[in-house]
Amino acid sequence: MGRPVAVVGTGIAKYGVRNDASIAELAWEAIHGALAEAGVEQKDIDIVVVGNVGGWSSEPLSSVVLLEYAGMSGKPVYRVEAACATGSAAIKAAHDAIASGEADLALVVGVERMNESPTPIVVEFIGRAGNYFWEFENFGLTFPGYYALYATAYMDKYRATEEDLCRVAVKNHYYASFNPKAHFPRKISLEQCMQSRYIAWPLKLFDSSPITDGAAAVVLASEELAKKLTDSPVWIEAIGMASDTSNLSKRPDFLVHRASLWAAERAFKKLGIEREESYKHFDFANVHDAFTIAEILAYEALGFAKWGEGYKLVREEQTYIGGLIPVNLDGGLKAKGHPIGATGVGMAVEHVRQLQQRVEKERQAPIVKGRSLAHNVGGTGHYAFITVYSLEKPRRP
Amino acid sequence: MGRPVAVVGTGIAKYGVRNDASIAELAWEAIHGALAEAGVEQKDIDIVVVGNVGGWSSEPLSSVVLLEYAGMSGKPVYRVEAACATGSAAIKAAHDAIASGEADLALVVGVERMNESPTPIVVEFIGRAGNYFWEFENFGLTFPGYYALYATAYMDKYRATEEDLCRVAVKNHYYASFNPKAHFPRKISLEQCMQSRYIAWPLKLFDSSPITDGAAAVVLASEELAKKLTDSPVWIEAIGMASDTSNLSKRPDFLVHRASLWAAERAFKKLGIEREESYKHFDFANVHDAFTIAEILAYEALGFAKWGEGYKLVREEQTYIGGLIPVNLDGGLKAKGHPIGATGVGMAVEHVRQLQQRVEKERQAPIVKGRSLAHNVGGTGHYAFITVYSLEKPRRP
Repeated sequence: MGRPVAVVGTGIAKYGVRNDASIAELAWEAIHGALAEAGVEQKDIDIVVVGNVGGWSSEPLSSVVLLEYAGMSGKPVYRVEAACATGSAAIKAAHDAIASGEADLALVVGVERMNESPTPIVVEFIGRAGNYFWEFENFGLTFPGYYALYATAYMDKYRATEEDLCRVAVKNHYYASFNPKAHFPRKISLEQCMQSRYIAWPLKLFDSSPITDGAAAVVLASEELAKKLTDSPVWIEAIGMASDTSNLSKRPDFLVHRASLWAAERAFKKLGIEREESYKHFDFANVHDAFTIAEILAYEALGFAKWGEGYKLVREEQTYIGGLIPVNLDGGLKAKGHPIGATGVGMAVEHVRQLQQRVEKERQAPIVKGRSLAHNVGGTGHYAFITVYSLEKPRRP
Repeated sequence: MGRPVAVVGTGIAKYGVRNDASIAELAWEAIHGALAEAGVEQKDIDIVVVGNVGGWSSEPLSSVVLLEYAGMSGKPVYRVEAACATGSAAIKAAHDAIASGEADLALVVGVERMNESPTPIVVEFIGRAGNYFWEFENFGLTFPGYYALYATAYMDKYRATEEDLCRVAVKNHYYASFNPKAHFPRKISLEQCMQSRYIAWPLKLFDSSPITDGAAAVVLASEELAKKLTDSPVWIEAIGMASDTSNLSKRPDFLVHRASLWAAERAFKKLGIEREESYKHFDFANVHDAFTIAEILAYEALGFAKWGEGYKLVREEQTYIGGLIPVNLDGGLKAKGHPIGATGVGMAVEHVRQLQQRVEKERQAPIVKGRSLAHNVGGTGHYAFITVYSLEKPRRP
């Protein structure tokens, strides 16, 4: 609702272990690309929204640190956090600033430098991403442990196998191999995944997204400015948001990712789409594959597959290009990487470039419907954001 | 711009050292009050924006933890941070959600439980609120140390005295003595302040805001809903935002608080107000008195006094009720307390209740113009937010 909002510029830093760059330098890799693509300068930006989780960083005021380096001190700015969905939350906040008329041109920067802390610290911090007091402190569950609960419940009820989970990793690595910005731009075999060591049974190393440093940026514009700046704006057609209990133990069913379901229902309602056949309306999608099981649960919550049949989609290669709906053509969190504050903004970069048909040809989705879906989860389903991108300007009531 | 946004409910927890309450319980103290005052239930809320800095808390996902306790799991939510201006940033984000038409009813919750960590940890964390890499790590400046740089520069150039600084503390404690929610609801004498120990010369213990736990909440509504819910809505008339360099050493002049100046100019431009006579347009104001010198610098940046004459305002008691413009009638950060994520939301609670003439009579400003100004700084001028509250619905272009 409100004024239509377009993406008019995108930029992304190389994802990986980026000990070569400070948080400000990493952010700038993405920012300068987004500004250049939009054809605007720092002074033209009305507001900056930064997506950054921090916790492992020595710079608690990441927003002003990166703005100073980017030559943008003085600009209105705040930071947004929604765990692993932080980047999508930042897009939502900047979207609203433009939709309301408070701003005409906004810069969204997602950045995370997770490898600044030693891995055990990062693992502990992410393990707290739920309810620390009850579940982490009392039961010592780590983040892979939480997702392993989903995986075991799913495998038990629906007879999915560890191979099915690994097939998600194989697909996402396949597409990452064509994405030079990916943390792991290389293919893996099903055997490699199956033979990798267990992190939390049944999840193995190759079922898990890596600890990634990265940054992504987009420039959002009002309709008036978008028309001046570009001949090919990509519009934010709808956003759906939801949350769920902080304690996993308070969720009635590990087989339904409720936050994703509710966020999808809210987004689809705005678009007049039935969830059960949502896949008919999108040329491609990104779903939040922090672990392979998460991608399968997302298929079902978003309506790409019936409940309990998500694993068949990947078994039948229906989420490759040419299938029912191609998913995670940039490599996903699994292989592109998951710099948590940047992930949702990195999805935005991917969706704009896919819809404009300018990604590497091996991973370019056929663009027919001109519409795509990005699904970004925070924590283990504590937050979910659905962002729908479109080549057509949204119809407003 | 966009649709008018009203505050229709306010709630605030007792500020202080709140080891009796978890972060969720503390937030609920404020939330239940705001919902009750608005006459709405949890299910009626479209979106929640949480202002919380964290860092000292064991719960990194504070938003979902407090939503679960408040019976609101499932709701769209994200967290916002802008250092000590976090609460005002949360109000800005929720404002835009309603102004854009994306939401009709929003809950803003500001909460901070700073005493969860030992004081030296809190002091170190706050000391990093600038540029850690260059200034904290290399020079070891603490947060009071940064503000002491402002104070020494100011005293040197304008011949203000330590007594002038203490006069700010005396005023704010005076008003806090009538505010039962204040951390320090008691008067102090000029002698008490002058005899308190130095923290960072010339700033003494009584020049400094305390380490406070607290929470505040407001319910924001669209015009249509506001009219249904209340006969006395208070409108958010304008918001002005700015930032400044993360390194203080990159700011050209310690005597001008640039972020405050720029934020004020942006807000006043929307209102058609001249900065030099801004005080004529407001019944009262809150300014960000993290340290007493900050209140004096704010007077000048906001146009309440000429450059270099801010200290005279407090010397002449012009910021008491009956003076030029009453400031910090709730006790300010200095004596009401400064639970950093809650502070800006706590200001909103105060402004709504003052404009509705329902605070304790000893600290009630005469309401004539029906308009008030809240000024909230993040870091040592890294962020500034000006929020203007009004009894009259804003005129929109």
